[in-house]
Amino acid sequence: MFKKILIANRGEIALRIIRTCKEMGISTVAVYSTADKDSLHVRFADEAVCIGPAASKDSYLNIPNIISAAEITNADAIHPGYGFLSENAEFSKICGEYGIKFIGADPEMISKMGDKATAKATMKAAGVPTIPGSEGLLESVEEGKKIAKDMGYPVILKATAGGGGKGMRIVNNEGEFKKAWDSARQESGASFGNDALYLEKFVEEPRHVEIQIVGDKNGRACHLSERDCSIQRRHQKLIEETPCPVMTDELRDAMGKAAIAGAEAVGYEGAGTIEFLLDKHNNFYFMEMNTRIQVEHPITEEVTDFDLIKEQIKVAAGMTISGENYFPHLCAMECRINAEDPANGFRPSPGKITNLHLPGGHGVRVDSHVYAGYTIPPFYDSMIAKLIVSGQTREEVMVRMKRALEEFVIEGVKTTIPFHIEMMDNEIFKSGNFTTKFLDDYDFTKLKSGK
Amino acid sequence: MFKKILIANRGEIALRIIRTCKEMGISTVAVYSTADKDSLHVRFADEAVCIGPAASKDSYLNIPNIISAAEITNADAIHPGYGFLSENAEFSKICGEYGIKFIGADPEMISKMGDKATAKATMKAAGVPTIPGSEGLLESVEEGKKIAKDMGYPVILKATAGGGGKGMRIVNNEGEFKKAWDSARQESGASFGNDALYLEKFVEEPRHVEIQIVGDKNGRACHLSERDCSIQRRHQKLIEETPCPVMTDELRDAMGKAAIAGAEAVGYEGAGTIEFLLDKHNNFYFMEMNTRIQVEHPITEEVTDFDLIKEQIKVAAGMTISGENYFPHLCAMECRINAEDPANGFRPSPGKITNLHLPGGHGVRVDSHVYAGYTIPPFYDSMIAKLIVSGQTREEVMVRMKRALEEFVIEGVKTTIPFHIEMMDNEIFKSGNFTTKFLDDYDFTKLKSGK
Repeated sequence: MFKKILIANRGEIALRIIRTCKEMGISTVAVYSTADKDSLHVRFADEAVCIGPAASKDSYLNIPNIISAAEITNADAIHPGYGFLSENAEFSKICGEYGIKFIGADPEMISKMGDKATAKATMKAAGVPTIPGSEGLLESVEEGKKIAKDMGYPVILKATAGGGGKGMRIVNNEGEFKKAWDSARQESGASFGNDALYLEKFVEEPRHVEIQIVGDKNGRACHLSERDCSIQRRHQKLIEETPCPVMTDELRDAMGKAAIAGAEAVGYEGAGTIEFLLDKHNNFYFMEMNTRIQVEHPITEEVTDFDLIKEQIKVAAGMTISGENYFPHLCAMECRINAEDPANGFRPSPGKITNLHLPGGHGVRVDSHVYAGYTIPPFYDSMIAKLIVSGQTREEVMVRMKRALEEFVIEGVKTTIPFHIEMMDNEIFKSGNFTTKFLDDYDFTKLKSGK
Repeated sequence: MFKKILIANRGEIALRIIRTCKEMGISTVAVYSTADKDSLHVRFADEAVCIGPAASKDSYLNIPNIISAAEITNADAIHPGYGFLSENAEFSKICGEYGIKFIGADPEMISKMGDKATAKATMKAAGVPTIPGSEGLLESVEEGKKIAKDMGYPVILKATAGGGGKGMRIVNNEGEFKKAWDSARQESGASFGNDALYLEKFVEEPRHVEIQIVGDKNGRACHLSERDCSIQRRHQKLIEETPCPVMTDELRDAMGKAAIAGAEAVGYEGAGTIEFLLDKHNNFYFMEMNTRIQVEHPITEEVTDFDLIKEQIKVAAGMTISGENYFPHLCAMECRINAEDPANGFRPSPGKITNLHLPGGHGVRVDSHVYAGYTIPPFYDSMIAKLIVSGQTREEVMVRMKRALEEFVIEGVKTTIPFHIEMMDNEIFKSGNFTTKFLDDYDFTKLKSGK
């Protein structure tokens, strides 16, 4: 087992990793930017090294300084957390060259899964469902119609140069095809000077459902069930839960098997997540694989009783897994508490926390690096706490979450707490019948500001 | 279901009950003494009524004022928590007379289980093992020897007027009997002016092991496994854990069956605890039944996922239980954080909490009514927080507990945290092989003071 781990991250995830290291009897080295010198991760680590000024590129993304910090402190492994260098193939490679174990994927795996086209082709070859579509660009309306007919309507035409929804048309049946083709070409030509189109199956009423997997050096993988992360605003997850409210045993089994097949096909080692889009017909399609710990991993921990950081460290140290899959007997949900003003476009609200009181009691977990008197710096992610609640049923989890949100006192900055409280009373959210589009036209301006 | 519950208690248990009521959609009424006006239970309840001055007899034990508070707020039930009026038959009776549901045992049950001799006789009749002994006082050495021979050595001679260990002699075999008899009589005569003796089986290397039960109006009861509360100082529990470190499946089954038999024999309704002494031969003997929620109930919640306060309220409202017994798949431990100075005879240390930071993360639960700036009054129990930790193994729980204790910051008052940190490194505690006598000659003065 490792003797000393350097944590190449900040905030709650750095503290999260330090906690598990302490429990495993492993020494810890925190790294920090000058803006983070008063952070709890610095205070709770056994050693701490300043790696540069506030800007991420000069500190948390500064590979030479982080490697130097590991060298001078004699760390034998680096845990990258999420974000920053966690999926940086170059960093993973350099760690290896310096004889420091990178607790994450090897450089080839990161590169392979980081490139969308390669990842999709790899998963498809392993039998993991991917979104069907044209192989490359369409030559003609006729070719498009033939492919659409083969995979079934609805389909979506996309401009290869597209973005922001431009040059994109949903086609519900063959009768609509020609008109959609013409208008998509015209729009993309006018917008991007390139009218080439490709075709994909249109995923109806999509949910974001991801499977947590753990693989070991023997090429064996197991899954720890799913997380539903459909509550997003501009692709930023705000609430995650497990189980997915519309999950069935058969579907979980199928998605779990697909995720394991994908992970084993590439010989994946460590904790990883395979993200799928799930449509209203229970078809699911590979989106991407994250070769790192996810922000929302605690909900899986609450329902399986595993410490996923511990599992990552054990597998990185060469230990093997049981290979058993885990099906939750509980429900859990996470609300991301961000220092943002939800009533004003989720504008970041950094500053000093003048008063802090954390919720507690049965089924309530808080992962946070902040404390009363802490000043949230404006340079990084605005997440300041994760409130994780578990219970016997989804309903129990939601009333408990609301109770905990109402107990949570954070003064001095605006937070997403009022948004979350409103969600716990929202009829659509309560019903469980929502998609990734749910918050697209949600009126946040009517949120009660403050608490 | 009840519409409004008055909580006739203070501190963490009042807050604990309010939390569950909120989750159940039940309104809450807090009562408080003038010394507790700034307490969190007052702040978090929907309504709050001052019931008198600081002294418990004038406030939390003041039945007329509490009943008045329930009347003026239209509460339809009262939850008494633990301590104070929770096992007061008169209070239970008066609640009934005023048409207010007492969430606890009925007056007859409280009286029956509150009287040690009646409780023991009742349980014995129901087939629950009780400590064998002479029926009343001994007439002669010969009678004593005969009874001792029948039940087997070792036995213990006790002065009927005794106390503080005086007039008490352990007898290991018949050869020792006469000498022990003479000296016990002489000592009790000299100490109490009464030299009458009785005899009991001597429980060797006893552990305090209690079974949590829940019964309903149909006379059905189930058990939720055991809690080991052997870590005590002067009969005050300091650390509780589940499972009991020396428990076997067979023993749990036998103790669970005995507890259920006892509860069903008296038609027990609600949550209750049957406390046993467990000896080194795995014999167990009924000690007493607590007809209320216990301080240490959260460890059972953590391993069974039940909310025991919710179960109490449901049963009091006439709902029935499934009748299934629960066997834990996890381990959990509770450390009582008291405002006491363990290095100075656990002297109470009331006063203002100048800084507070609660531990968090995976497997960590805090139940507490205090906050930064709160002044602990000198009038009540000194417990200010319960730190409850769960994990897959006892070893994981202990390293996690130590990690959480080290994160816990309470400034301004002395606490039992240094004692608990030391316990997590204590070889005897770690081995699981300890008895209720473990702390009797523990040297607390060597504890590192503060943290």
